[in-house]
Amino acid sequence: MALQRLIEYDDAAAEVRAVYDDILATRKTDYINNFWKALANDPAGLKRTWESIKQIMAPGALDPLTKEMIYIAVSVTNQCTYCIASHTDSAHGKGMTDEMFHELMAVVGMANETNRLAAGYQVEIDARYKVT
Amino acid sequence: MALQRLIEYDDAAAEVRAVYDDILATRKTDYINNFWKALANDPAGLKRTWESIKQIMAPGALDPLTKEMIYIAVSVTNQCTYCIASHTDSAHGKGMTDEMFHELMAVVGMANETNRLAAGYQVEIDARYKVT
Amino acid sequence: MALQRLIEYDDAAAEVRAVYDDILATRKTDYINNFWKALANDPAGLKRTWESIKQIMAPGALDPLTKEMIYIAVSVTNQCTYCIASHTDSAHGKGMTDEMFHELMAVVGMANETNRLAAGYQVEIDARYKVT
Amino acid sequence: MALQRLIEYDDAAAEVRAVYDDILATRKTDYINNFWKALANDPAGLKRTWESIKQIMAPGALDPLTKEMIYIAVSVTNQCTYCIASHTDSAHGKGMTDEMFHELMAVVGMANETNRLAAGYQVEIDARYKVT
Amino acid sequence: MALQRLIEYDDAAAEVRAVYDDILATRKTDYINNFWKALANDPAGLKRTWESIKQIMAPGALDPLTKEMIYIAVSVTNQCTYCIASHTDSAHGKGMTDEMFHELMAVVGMANETNRLAAGYQVEIDARYKVT
Amino acid sequence: MALQRLIEYDDAAAEVRAVYDDILATRKTDYINNFWKALANDPAGLKRTWESIKQIMAPGALDPLTKEMIYIAVSVTNQCTYCIASHTDSAHGKGMTDEMFHELMAVVGMANETNRLAAGYQVEIDARYKVT
Repeated sequence: MALQRLIEYDDAAAEVRAVYDDILATRKTDYINNFWKALANDPAGLKRTWESIKQIMAPGALDPLTKEMIYIAVSVTNQCTYCIASHTDSAHGKGMTDEMFHELMAVVGMANETNRLAAGYQVEIDARYKVT
Repeated sequence: MALQRLIEYDDAAAEVRAVYDDILATRKTDYINNFWKALANDPAGLKRTWESIKQIMAPGALDPLTKEMIYIAVSVTNQCTYCIASHTDSAHGKGMTDEMFHELMAVVGMANETNRLAAGYQVEIDARYKVT
Repeated sequence: MALQRLIEYDDAAAEVRAVYDDILATRKTDYINNFWKALANDPAGLKRTWESIKQIMAPGALDPLTKEMIYIAVSVTNQCTYCIASHTDSAHGKGMTDEMFHELMAVVGMANETNRLAAGYQVEIDARYKVT
Repeated sequence: MALQRLIEYDDAAAEVRAVYDDILATRKTDYINNFWKALANDPAGLKRTWESIKQIMAPGALDPLTKEMIYIAVSVTNQCTYCIASHTDSAHGKGMTDEMFHELMAVVGMANETNRLAAGYQVEIDARYKVT
Repeated sequence: MALQRLIEYDDAAAEVRAVYDDILATRKTDYINNFWKALANDPAGLKRTWESIKQIMAPGALDPLTKEMIYIAVSVTNQCTYCIASHTDSAHGKGMTDEMFHELMAVVGMANETNRLAAGYQVEIDARYKVT
Repeated sequence: MALQRLIEYDDAAAEVRAVYDDILATRKTDYINNFWKALANDPAGLKRTWESIKQIMAPGALDPLTKEMIYIAVSVTNQCTYCIASHTDSAHGKGMTDEMFHELMAVVGMANETNRLAAGYQVEIDARYKVT
């Protein structure tokens, strides 16, 4: 058994192909990336995950590029190499410049640093930040 | 010894007070939050950390609110309760609406989910994402 | 010096070989995986780690397959590629079906998502969950 | 503004109340926990998250208690105090005994340990674990 | 049932009391901290964990204070508030000065920052670091 | 565009070359590792990061080898493969023996284990550890 067998469009069952079609149409692309081809081994999981992502990443109060950069921030913090590669590619496709990428990395790095300083110094939450 | 003894402005040595003054001026506020008051136990660390944050969080290719939201994304991923509270407060101060916050949380949650799906399914990086 | 030099059975000192023999007997296998061969560079650490794992992974109130799936859940959350590969292999050997694996991944993904929503929304623990 | 304002049933809009009703019916309980009441500030997110969890946590190839224990394994690994408290409560409600909980903790602890040994010793993945 | 019921010395069964006695003797103290009292709900886990820690934290090629600081570095990185509090206390007891603590925090913060820069910039491992 | 394009000394702009020169002089080496060559795509970030690291890793209350081992402890906990490789190399260069490395790994592994036991058992912080 191959865990990460990638399900190609031509080999996909109808329910998987329907998700692939929606990905291609929504993203205006002709490329299905490996993440979806691996997840397609679980058609119900593929459909649920895609529909959530489709809803979450759509333009809203935040624009799609900002959402991609947030995705990168999380993926870098978690050391997810696949996700870093794929979302950095997506962000460039949505207009992220090198300068924006460098600033994004600087913020992500700094946040990871100060998260630990706050923990290590056991800083108590300021009264004014407390929600009542 | 009190680890997290908070150094108040009036009790601070000159080098600490200089950093506090710069924080107050840069942020146009009259409030120094506990993170800095705790870090002030290490004046060199306080100065280095503040100068890095000041440089990194300044307006640039990314606007200050986007940077705050990226800070929140990292802090939430790391479960840093202090940082979540303080940066959520800052982001609201810079114009984050409730709707923006909800979308931010949705992206952070989803990214944390798919980071693990990519890892668990051992998805190989697509050739097109590889940097050469 | 080779950090991860793998100590093969035939090259192993008596104390390492004794651990290898116990691994082979306990697991009813003829294969020592690389994790143990690397750890064998520290014979005391090898022995301590193996004895803990042997005790912890033995059948008890939880069956061995459930324990393997919990191991995978942690390894995926931590993005430990070696551990994901080896424990997924072990779990398949203990009867994990593809369907079980897909459900396992779905739960791990969802838990990683809601862990962040709970943190980001700063949800207070319900009084009824508090242990007194 | 109160970030984590908890939306009570009686104050909830119709779309939130519909989710609450489904939670109460599905879980055969009369209690909505704080996580949902906080998430209810984002009705679309509440609905999406609940529907995913409902689908994922339903009985399938894995039984509901096994799924709860996997949820705990992830939450403990991520240090999510809210999630640890709520899912430990749920697991006890589904039949987790103290002995099962102790074994669960032992596996989670051990996995977190060996995840780091595998990383620190830079152990290469065994050829036999590689998916082709 | 109280999950974290703390087992006091006077209420402890013989096997738990034997571990407590060894902790008190090894650490030359008259205080058992809450971690052990909680773990005592699982006597086998208590014994196994204590014996591993006793072996690992003993003086060796690294002195006990260095080991405590490494423990703090990990605990801060993982945001484990209990562990940060207890091991910082232990480290002070073993001679950690405020200056050492500040340098420790600075290194931990910086490492957490550059860990993410290395991931985000997708830096390839230098040939000379590769173990052969 | 190549994200991780490595900027070689001969191709570097004056401000990048100045940082490289300082790295070479401070570390008494003739080798710039890939981390810096990648970061050099952001000259301001390169300079800020190097100056912070230079200050933090200098001999102080903690010696440089202890600091490298703390760096490794964090990198292993975060599963940062690049950082594990480069800092393990640095630590060996500063005198870390195999025995020290094994003890370091043992402490890092154990801390990652007990961090989760403390979280999972929801251990309350002992009154004596609380800072007032």
